[in-house]
Amino acid sequence: MADPEAVGRAFLDYFYGLFSTNRAGLASLYQDSSLLTFEGNKFQGQQAIIQKLTTMPFSNVAVQRDTVDIQPSISGGILIFVTGKLMPEGENMPLKFSQTFHLMPTPNNSFVVTNDMFRLNYG
Amino acid sequence: MADPEAVGRAFLDYFYGLFSTNRAGLASLYQDSSLLTFEGNKFQGQQAIIQKLTTMPFSNVAVQRDTVDIQPSISGGILIFVTGKLMPEGENMPLKFSQTFHLMPTPNNSFVVTNDMFRLNYG
Repeated sequence: MADPEAVGRAFLDYFYGLFSTNRAGLASLYQDSSLLTFEGNKFQGQQAIIQKLTTMPFSNVAVQRDTVDIQPSISGGILIFVTGKLMPEGENMPLKFSQTFHLMPTPNNSFVVTNDMFRLNYG
Repeated sequence: MADPEAVGRAFLDYFYGLFSTNRAGLASLYQDSSLLTFEGNKFQGQQAIIQKLTTMPFSNVAVQRDTVDIQPSISGGILIFVTGKLMPEGENMPLKFSQTFHLMPTPNNSFVVTNDMFRLNYG
């Protein structure tokens, strides 16, 4: 079985790399049953999720991870809990955020995001 | 199948009610495979988790939930993502926190906490 900590950190590198500059590239991480709750708004399925992620009010954004917690979940799943800061290009004020991912393994030894929950934590 | 939103909110009422005033009472919510990551420190199993929760540096604490997000997970599980504030008795400064729970159903129509991740979000 994959090491949850290593898989989780590799996933975050990949996810936030694309989130920063090419959010459309995140599509392959979601399936039709995937759920995203973004600031309380719910989206289901790859198409609706990518539509949301690619129409946010900023394009390039730097992501700073302050804390990362990873736990194994049932059936080979991996839970990831991140707190950090978003710094949209051209903005001076970082936005604090928290995000939870649930990953599940696929038959071809990859992982998909089954659950994604994102919140800004206003100071 | 239970409504995840209703179960999740009832769980939070129960959990934070006990967390506020009687953390030893949370024991029945955890099993030997349960995982807690508290400010980056890892605990496994009911005994270790309750030991941690009952030796925190405050006894009574008010918990204010600012946001609650709930999603169904695989195999009847429920993911809960909370942001809010802790107000320990006698302290003036609320402590912002984020917490993620993963609940799984038990054979007797109850739920246990399989995963619990807690972080303070320092301003």
